[in-house]
Amino acid sequence: MTSTTAAATTWQARAETKQAAREALLPADTILPPGLVTDQTTDVTAIPRTSGLLSAHELEITESETPAILAKLASGEWTSEAVTRAFCRRASIAHQLTNCLTEIFFDKGIARAKALDEEFKRTGKARGPLHGLPVSLKEQIGVAGVERSFGFVGFIGRVAEVDSALVEILLAQGAIPYCATNIAQGLFFGEAVNNVFGETVNPYNRKLTPGGSSGGEGALLALRGSPLGVGSDIGGSVRIPAGHCGLYSLRPSYQRIPYEGTCNSQEGQDSIRSVLGPMSTSLGAVKTLFKSVLDAQPWRLDPQVLRQGWREEGYALADHGHDQGLVFGMMWDDGSVRPAPPYARAMTEVKAALEAAGHKVVDFVPYEAAEGTAIMYESFGGDGMRDLFDTLALSGEPRVGPQADQPQGTELTITQWWSLHARKGRWLKGQLDAWNATSKTTGTGRAVDAIICPVAGGPAQVLRTPQYHTYTHWCNVADFPAVAIPVTRVDPALDPKVERSDYHGDMDKHFWEQYDPQVYANSPIGLQVVAQKGEDEAVLAMAEIVDNALKAHRAAHGTTDPS
Amino acid sequence: MTSTTAAATTWQARAETKQAAREALLPADTILPPGLVTDQTTDVTAIPRTSGLLSAHELEITESETPAILAKLASGEWTSEAVTRAFCRRASIAHQLTNCLTEIFFDKGIARAKALDEEFKRTGKARGPLHGLPVSLKEQIGVAGVERSFGFVGFIGRVAEVDSALVEILLAQGAIPYCATNIAQGLFFGEAVNNVFGETVNPYNRKLTPGGSSGGEGALLALRGSPLGVGSDIGGSVRIPAGHCGLYSLRPSYQRIPYEGTCNSQEGQDSIRSVLGPMSTSLGAVKTLFKSVLDAQPWRLDPQVLRQGWREEGYALADHGHDQGLVFGMMWDDGSVRPAPPYARAMTEVKAALEAAGHKVVDFVPYEAAEGTAIMYESFGGDGMRDLFDTLALSGEPRVGPQADQPQGTELTITQWWSLHARKGRWLKGQLDAWNATSKTTGTGRAVDAIICPVAGGPAQVLRTPQYHTYTHWCNVADFPAVAIPVTRVDPALDPKVERSDYHGDMDKHFWEQYDPQVYANSPIGLQVVAQKGEDEAVLAMAEIVDNALKAHRAAHGTTDPS
Repeated sequence: MTSTTAAATTWQARAETKQAAREALLPADTILPPGLVTDQTTDVTAIPRTSGLLSAHELEITESETPAILAKLASGEWTSEAVTRAFCRRASIAHQLTNCLTEIFFDKGIARAKALDEEFKRTGKARGPLHGLPVSLKEQIGVAGVERSFGFVGFIGRVAEVDSALVEILLAQGAIPYCATNIAQGLFFGEAVNNVFGETVNPYNRKLTPGGSSGGEGALLALRGSPLGVGSDIGGSVRIPAGHCGLYSLRPSYQRIPYEGTCNSQEGQDSIRSVLGPMSTSLGAVKTLFKSVLDAQPWRLDPQVLRQGWREEGYALADHGHDQGLVFGMMWDDGSVRPAPPYARAMTEVKAALEAAGHKVVDFVPYEAAEGTAIMYESFGGDGMRDLFDTLALSGEPRVGPQADQPQGTELTITQWWSLHARKGRWLKGQLDAWNATSKTTGTGRAVDAIICPVAGGPAQVLRTPQYHTYTHWCNVADFPAVAIPVTRVDPALDPKVERSDYHGDMDKHFWEQYDPQVYANSPIGLQVVAQKGEDEAVLAMAEIVDNALKAHRAAHGTTDPS
Repeated sequence: MTSTTAAATTWQARAETKQAAREALLPADTILPPGLVTDQTTDVTAIPRTSGLLSAHELEITESETPAILAKLASGEWTSEAVTRAFCRRASIAHQLTNCLTEIFFDKGIARAKALDEEFKRTGKARGPLHGLPVSLKEQIGVAGVERSFGFVGFIGRVAEVDSALVEILLAQGAIPYCATNIAQGLFFGEAVNNVFGETVNPYNRKLTPGGSSGGEGALLALRGSPLGVGSDIGGSVRIPAGHCGLYSLRPSYQRIPYEGTCNSQEGQDSIRSVLGPMSTSLGAVKTLFKSVLDAQPWRLDPQVLRQGWREEGYALADHGHDQGLVFGMMWDDGSVRPAPPYARAMTEVKAALEAAGHKVVDFVPYEAAEGTAIMYESFGGDGMRDLFDTLALSGEPRVGPQADQPQGTELTITQWWSLHARKGRWLKGQLDAWNATSKTTGTGRAVDAIICPVAGGPAQVLRTPQYHTYTHWCNVADFPAVAIPVTRVDPALDPKVERSDYHGDMDKHFWEQYDPQVYANSPIGLQVVAQKGEDEAVLAMAEIVDNALKAHRAAHGTTDPS
């Protein structure tokens, strides 16, 4: 008779057991045939369609635009059960291709879908604006009865006792949670790898990361294994995977989507806050989720949420002349690391599209971007990474990610911490004043209505290599809402390496040297549309304007959208 | 030839020089005749009127209700110069009676008033909703060109280079800043005493404190040396002096009135934030100032202010059934220290008044009030008071206030600090859930619309003795907006000591023993009306309802309002 206690088990064995349990939950009739995909298959985006595992109706459902799915659910044309089953099956395939799922609770989702269908049959009414729609959730978001290890071996076995405030609202609005998705260890970097669930890869090029920390969502959504997901963003974590996976996402301002009941590293680090945000192949779905949450008065459930519902006047751009000739500021270069060539091509195309649509585009030079990133890193490092190391020590598992080799540091004193806040306060004021000062150049009397910039310094990086993320960081420090939109994909013919002889510094040179169009071929390229603090509704409207302008411009020029 | 450098001068000498310079700015024809007031004169509220120093017109101006003054300024019936001169002169008298002023810049105020009068003559239009009105400001609020020592000897000579965001807005709305008012050293306690400016006393009973830390405002406004002032509140600092001086005040939610350009102790302590709030003898004036600031879009000047203008639907109580039968929760006792007898009398009268006006009043038991105060004190003590001691060391001046003898403590670690935030997060959720749970008892389907509680455990305390302030603290930790309203004054005949044999604990017993109606005779008694986070407009409306109900009730019963 053998007795194995948790303490006596290695962390590797515990993770293996956990992963095996996960794989056992994949529906047997969705398992990919051996040999269909090999290690040499880099672009797997067509596999769900070509695998033969999904019926024509399942393909129709999962490849419909999310607003169209919602309309068919609300009219009763499709049942929630059919839609949920289709996405569960496609999610299983997506997972086999990219390792994007952490918790699989298809059974709960299908049971809820059936109940909702029965309710609909009885009442003839949709439960809410998300009626019957499967929604995937980043690992950290609590769902009652579902394990939430948060990607740490030491937390395997911890089950969320209650629904998080967000999930409570999603359920009330008719959504169907059915799976959780992979994250960066502790959410500390822009990939999706940890010792419990392993590494998620980019479905457009599996040698690359999907981005992160909400990378599981990125891969799952890109493969249409989910019509709508929720990630979190403390330094770019919904915008980076959206950009690297050809998706839309919103990083809302602080305290709008409830965080209550969502776990995180460094609980109580309230200086630069993580926010939850929607991700989808559809910008309309991103808006629908955000509006649905606000319409449910989330401040009743989360004491830290602002008492501020959806503002239609914000969405109508009341503060921006109601979209009559907007002025966009184009951030070509942040002064520290010039974006890789495909971003310049994407921005040039967007500029032409906006001008063709009657808007104005001016250059925008950011205010002390490097200082913003410095404030962010010093904030995240405030405890010398003690919280992370203490959590790793629970199981003996190692640190992973780009900083895997970096040892535990020193905690700041409170005096240093408060000084950091004061420094942030000055940076915030400088940032606001710099933005407002653009009113001298726009010709509208207003400052630039929104700023457009890359989602990262380069395309999705090779797995476990560094990436430059200041292009998202500044929004987190300044609390600017931002929408990521897909624009193009890396094309070695269009995006050759540009010869440069001068650099902003060593980091700029490093990332320039790293760029190789062959390595990044087919990798999606996304841009952000950024508005001022609290302008969440407006930034959604302006992202729609950019997206529509781009589509119209391409239609007029007979080019197709490669993303 | 003698040479005196700052370094060689004692802190006492520097403070004396500073005070002498201040006294020299009092208009010569406002100096009180010797003997009119002695140390035995405790109630000085009638002195401005009886001194003979103010003309009938000056008395008419300064004793008018602030909204009436604004109406006469806006119509041109009164000039801003006349109004400003009248308040300058009365402020001088108030200062001689209570030591309430820190910086005197009557000259700047009068010059601006004249310019505004000329503008009005030319354009026929009021500058804004505060056109021509003198507004007093707590010492910490920056006014360009005015010294801002913040009550520390080591900071004497520091001059604000630019207007704070609030002052910029006040000026744009037509207000006339003309003086700054006294504070507690470092804003750390509920009195108004520091080594630079000395001690402010309560005009209703000069053996007592006016409360604090915005105590200078309290004394000045109570003597009608100002029609409207702005204080700050991190633990009760606009509500305590309002309550102890027979005034109205609003503690707004975080991030609505801009704090940019306002100095503070422990800069960067962002966990429990100080907020600026209006104080006045008129509730209408409190509302007008708050609305004027929001109407000016303060988020354009302060990056930390929410993009959220005045919400008329909040003021119309849209979330509360539009004042058709509100339900108030009465916090008779917080479970740690039972309020002194006059508060029970005040609350009983308010309850009867509200019921007579058709509202419902239920008992409300607060959620873990002591834990809220513990979180607050641990937050304020996060740096072991190093910031305070470092500032004191600049000049060698001693610590003053109830904790004067307490030595410097130990700084927390970041891990401890973040744990404190996490603990606060749990308390916030408990607080919200407890409030929402009252919906089971109201009969309206809503939770209690507002909560009514004392502004302190006792009346204004004897100078430099401890007071119990948990009754204000919970609002700061929870970020609940609250309005202080004056209700009555201590009357030894009506407020005898109540015999008690059981106590919540030692602190309860201590404050019970401290209560002596003779000592506190004539001291104003104020209550707070508290609403949920973000309900600033609603709490103003509900405070008006309480105030009007009380006045109507007294009129119906032929009693007069002693305050």
